Amino acid sequence: MLKIGILGATGYAGQNLVWLIKNHPNVVLSFVTSRSHKGKKYSDIYPNMRAFVDLECLDTSNIDAAIIRDTDLVFLALPHKSSMGMVRNLLRINPGIRIIDLSADFRINNPEVYEKWYNTPHELINLIDEFVFGLPEIYAESIKEASYVANPGCYPTASILALAPAMKAGLIEFDVIVDAKSGVSGAGRGAKTANLYCEVNESVKAYGLFSHRHTPEIAQELSLLGGGSSNVVFTPHLIPMNRGILSTCYARLKKNVNSSEMLALYKDFYNEKPFVRVLNKGSLPETRNVRKSNFCDIGLAIDKTSSSLIAVSAIDNLMKGAASQAVQNMNLMLGYNEETGLDFAPIAP
Amino acid sequence: MLKIGILGATGYAGQNLVWLIKNHPNVVLSFVTSRSHKGKKYSDIYPNMRAFVDLECLDTSNIDAAIIRDTDLVFLALPHKSSMGMVRNLLRINPGIRIIDLSADFRINNPEVYEKWYNTPHELINLIDEFVFGLPEIYAESIKEASYVANPGCYPTASILALAPAMKAGLIEFDVIVDAKSGVSGAGRGAKTANLYCEVNESVKAYGLFSHRHTPEIAQELSLLGGGSSNVVFTPHLIPMNRGILSTCYARLKKNVNSSEMLALYKDFYNEKPFVRVLNKGSLPETRNVRKSNFCDIGLAIDKTSSSLIAVSAIDNLMKGAASQAVQNMNLMLGYNEETGLDFAPIAP
Amino acid sequence: MLKIGILGATGYAGQNLVWLIKNHPNVVLSFVTSRSHKGKKYSDIYPNMRAFVDLECLDTSNIDAAIIRDTDLVFLALPHKSSMGMVRNLLRINPGIRIIDLSADFRINNPEVYEKWYNTPHELINLIDEFVFGLPEIYAESIKEASYVANPGCYPTASILALAPAMKAGLIEFDVIVDAKSGVSGAGRGAKTANLYCEVNESVKAYGLFSHRHTPEIAQELSLLGGGSSNVVFTPHLIPMNRGILSTCYARLKKNVNSSEMLALYKDFYNEKPFVRVLNKGSLPETRNVRKSNFCDIGLAIDKTSSSLIAVSAIDNLMKGAASQAVQNMNLMLGYNEETGLDFAPIAP
Amino acid sequence: MLKIGILGATGYAGQNLVWLIKNHPNVVLSFVTSRSHKGKKYSDIYPNMRAFVDLECLDTSNIDAAIIRDTDLVFLALPHKSSMGMVRNLLRINPGIRIIDLSADFRINNPEVYEKWYNTPHELINLIDEFVFGLPEIYAESIKEASYVANPGCYPTASILALAPAMKAGLIEFDVIVDAKSGVSGAGRGAKTANLYCEVNESVKAYGLFSHRHTPEIAQELSLLGGGSSNVVFTPHLIPMNRGILSTCYARLKKNVNSSEMLALYKDFYNEKPFVRVLNKGSLPETRNVRKSNFCDIGLAIDKTSSSLIAVSAIDNLMKGAASQAVQNMNLMLGYNEETGLDFAPIAP
Repeated sequence: MLKIGILGATGYAGQNLVWLIKNHPNVVLSFVTSRSHKGKKYSDIYPNMRAFVDLECLDTSNIDAAIIRDTDLVFLALPHKSSMGMVRNLLRINPGIRIIDLSADFRINNPEVYEKWYNTPHELINLIDEFVFGLPEIYAESIKEASYVANPGCYPTASILALAPAMKAGLIEFDVIVDAKSGVSGAGRGAKTANLYCEVNESVKAYGLFSHRHTPEIAQELSLLGGGSSNVVFTPHLIPMNRGILSTCYARLKKNVNSSEMLALYKDFYNEKPFVRVLNKGSLPETRNVRKSNFCDIGLAIDKTSSSLIAVSAIDNLMKGAASQAVQNMNLMLGYNEETGLDFAPIAP
Repeated sequence: MLKIGILGATGYAGQNLVWLIKNHPNVVLSFVTSRSHKGKKYSDIYPNMRAFVDLECLDTSNIDAAIIRDTDLVFLALPHKSSMGMVRNLLRINPGIRIIDLSADFRINNPEVYEKWYNTPHELINLIDEFVFGLPEIYAESIKEASYVANPGCYPTASILALAPAMKAGLIEFDVIVDAKSGVSGAGRGAKTANLYCEVNESVKAYGLFSHRHTPEIAQELSLLGGGSSNVVFTPHLIPMNRGILSTCYARLKKNVNSSEMLALYKDFYNEKPFVRVLNKGSLPETRNVRKSNFCDIGLAIDKTSSSLIAVSAIDNLMKGAASQAVQNMNLMLGYNEETGLDFAPIAP
Repeated sequence: MLKIGILGATGYAGQNLVWLIKNHPNVVLSFVTSRSHKGKKYSDIYPNMRAFVDLECLDTSNIDAAIIRDTDLVFLALPHKSSMGMVRNLLRINPGIRIIDLSADFRINNPEVYEKWYNTPHELINLIDEFVFGLPEIYAESIKEASYVANPGCYPTASILALAPAMKAGLIEFDVIVDAKSGVSGAGRGAKTANLYCEVNESVKAYGLFSHRHTPEIAQELSLLGGGSSNVVFTPHLIPMNRGILSTCYARLKKNVNSSEMLALYKDFYNEKPFVRVLNKGSLPETRNVRKSNFCDIGLAIDKTSSSLIAVSAIDNLMKGAASQAVQNMNLMLGYNEETGLDFAPIAP
Repeated sequence: MLKIGILGATGYAGQNLVWLIKNHPNVVLSFVTSRSHKGKKYSDIYPNMRAFVDLECLDTSNIDAAIIRDTDLVFLALPHKSSMGMVRNLLRINPGIRIIDLSADFRINNPEVYEKWYNTPHELINLIDEFVFGLPEIYAESIKEASYVANPGCYPTASILALAPAMKAGLIEFDVIVDAKSGVSGAGRGAKTANLYCEVNESVKAYGLFSHRHTPEIAQELSLLGGGSSNVVFTPHLIPMNRGILSTCYARLKKNVNSSEMLALYKDFYNEKPFVRVLNKGSLPETRNVRKSNFCDIGLAIDKTSSSLIAVSAIDNLMKGAASQAVQNMNLMLGYNEETGLDFAPIAP
């Protein structure tokens, strides 16, 4: 069985990776790391994992080279910029290691765009092209050949999947509005007052107007899909729930299509994609219907008066928006069936 | 003290009205009615009101005429269409009674628009013009003279207030997108599976795409403000919280203004309006900051690249979106200070 | 593969059974039934199951005999009393069918006790003894031989497991107090006002003081374990969360033991039981640590001054408290490894 | 109008005090202090208070003496031990100042008990007797004469009120079990991982078994009420909600009384107490029914078989459990009507 390491395993995305890898029939979890909890037993940080993962957390910034050399694939669930440094380090020690990076460091094709939005120069420009953007519904063939994958952001995953068929078919204008709603786990596990239960519960807010870092990622992919230059107005919101992203996407129609035709197009586009479920006319996605799964549910409606499309998608931000999509990428990279270890239904209630 | 009746007092808006009227220094609650709980003690339906309102609920469809004749003002918290019939009835018995209607029956100026969206012909067309649209920040002078007020919907209140200054000043295009998020109390107190705790908790969904009945109400008021014809794409969402609406409004700029200039315009527009708080640059509203109050908080940002405005407003859907706005209207109608009985801060946490 | 039917599949326990059976490697879900949703597609009731279970719901009270004859094992997730009638029916048509009943109908050994607490005479008294009480941590050997199993209630599962080792060892008095807290899914999926989001959220209540029907079930098993007559004061509480039960159990010590000794006893008692995790001294269970799993976590403390034990257990009420315990029982009955289809970690966050 | 200062105004109890004092007709809020937010505008910390309290937060540990001399009464919402030091300081500067201390420093009559539970010697032993235990339902007469009041803890307020009538009447044994459930605001506003939304939501846990510091406070007051020595087993639990405490109290009956008799005794005991509502037979309290109010609702049941009483009480932990009870004490100390500024109903939903 191939040996897997998870760096940054004590964040929420990391924990979901640990859960999935532990459950995966073809690979074995060989080590986990954590900056803030190094030296502690993993199941003391996440007691749900008692009797499943009792490994000691290694120090993320000080992993023994022998361990790295003995690892086939690593997931990096680290902050942006840290990830870049780690990639350099890992490849120096083990040039053959496969990497799935959950940070934004290798998602943006243009290093100037990266520098502008992340306020730091990119340090491994020559590697950017070797990282495939890990959205399997679009890039499955490249992912199968890749050694390095940049796992997409949670908001981009939901938003790109919601608009891809229409954009690819040239049915909508390039300028779109994405109004997205995320559960609190997207804000991470850091001890911040703003994320305390009593601060988040019973409230909703928008944040990062015109400035959220997922904007260029969505714009890049929509531009590539449509063969042009897409401008995206993207507004994220924080919702009082643990998991889930709902992305409500607004676009102007370029051609006169009705919702049945558009749905047929979507169903065709995602026909062979096991993790996208295009809903029937009149049905709309809800985040609870994809909870703790790798699914993306998509529904849509078209209004003739305003000549506009609303496409709504729902994912679990920690799964299809992070950990399970990373495993889906791993499956493709390692030649497994795409659904291996992910073929369970979402959980209700 | 003037005598007040509340019809439909056992819904959530009704309960908030009861709370406010009980707390109001100038008026007295003389009766409450309920279809579903007639004959029961009000505090048995809402045990929070024990020792405050132990009145028996009268039968909404069978109120003694003597009681109606002895009442100065009534709030109607009834379903649309029921409201219309009740208005006819009340005026026949007591032509001098003042009415604040929380339903949609008298909000839409054009009866054809009403019929189209509510699937029923309007039965009191000649009365429509006598009902003032009860948004005091826009229509205070008319409300002061009115005997009948149509209290705005929750979504329209938040959305119109968010866009009014820019629309009135001709700074934005008529076509706008409103993406709104509401707590579950907006769905009422009916026993529906869809509103059960386990169905709503830990989930978000959009509903009523291009078809929610608050759409024509928002369009009507924005059209009047801007002196033209506004097309509104309005998407409501259900959020797992009891109270609150956040309305995220997207508009294209017609003129080149920056956010400081726009904020100055907003602050000027709402300068004398005690219940609207325009936030400083960089601050955005959160529904928790207006919880259980009559306030509407507004924040905004402008993006030059896309030449667009995002204005975000937060209200408590049961208060400024229903009950406390109704009391604000009552204060104006009865010649009291607008803030009487409403001059408390929102509640945290 | 053996063929499984689930009767009452559209309740919350039923949905969890469907999920588990669909995921089970050794059996196949051959039919589902529902009283309230007969004729509908299962995935229209539970859209999370789209692409997994698109079966049509049969009418619970009118299942084709051929289907019953072709079924190896059924789960009954029906209301009490209905279950009894169904058992009679099923056995008449297919005497060889195996039955796991999630109702209370065959849990109470003494039919007089059943009649007293359930206000209805037992109709199949002669079958009571053939149903094994399906708590595998206590009765695994009998379950392996059984054709019929009475799956324990959610509160009893948590409470009995929390006290069993101490009671069996004769270390505590027979009279115990159990103060339990349950998520809302325990109240079922019926459309009741009391279970609406806004009624349950942001509140806690006790209910059924001295009168909850799980009381005799807990008392029966503690009596059997201790070899005497246990009197149980049991108070359930409703907590604003979807899933989970925490059972806080108070008992007087009969012998002078400290918490380390007691924990050692508990660890020994549950040594070979894969789904009970006895926590180390100083650790206490939380329902989130067993979410969506078959685990029961137990922690405890002893106070010398008051000579008392507090044992706290956490389960997922829909899993170890219903569906996954039923699958654990099925595994034992069918000769599979007890953990088959259940060997995944709880889910966080 | 008398001048009021609030020290520690940016915690949750402090915020509720600020809200109440701002709303109080007879007093004026003259200053607020904060350790962690000194120098900031209060409404920047609590934006709900915009336009209500825009005062700058003074540094708690460095308040100008002139300000203290010019203040009539202070509320201390500080950590234990800090409170003690502050009291010494305040009295040195302004010996006539009245003090309501929300910490535990002056609640425990016996300094040895204080030292044992709080792990620090008491530094102002001679002042302990001058602080009246601020539970107005028991000590109103002493509070009216007091200059210094020790405001009770949240759990003790709920628990003592639930048992006081029975204990005072000698109807129950001294040894009681209190199983209490609290909303998260009780854990304070400190940025701790354990109190993050995703850690608390969808979970319940017990904590502090046999060791919570509110234990001796409950025991002290029950002992005084019953004229003996009460041993209390007290178990607090954390519930996913912002506000509220439900206290489920178990006691053995010493005399043969039924629930009607006991309820009559309770109603008589609290007859003149405006903020305690004893529920009728068959009704039980829910925290939502006292939300954001000074009320304590109490319900009970008696079981003859086990000869036991369960008394359940509900309060808002931040109000009757802290801030509003402090204002009730202030009203009594300053000769106002006990209900001044507190005479509003709880808020639903």
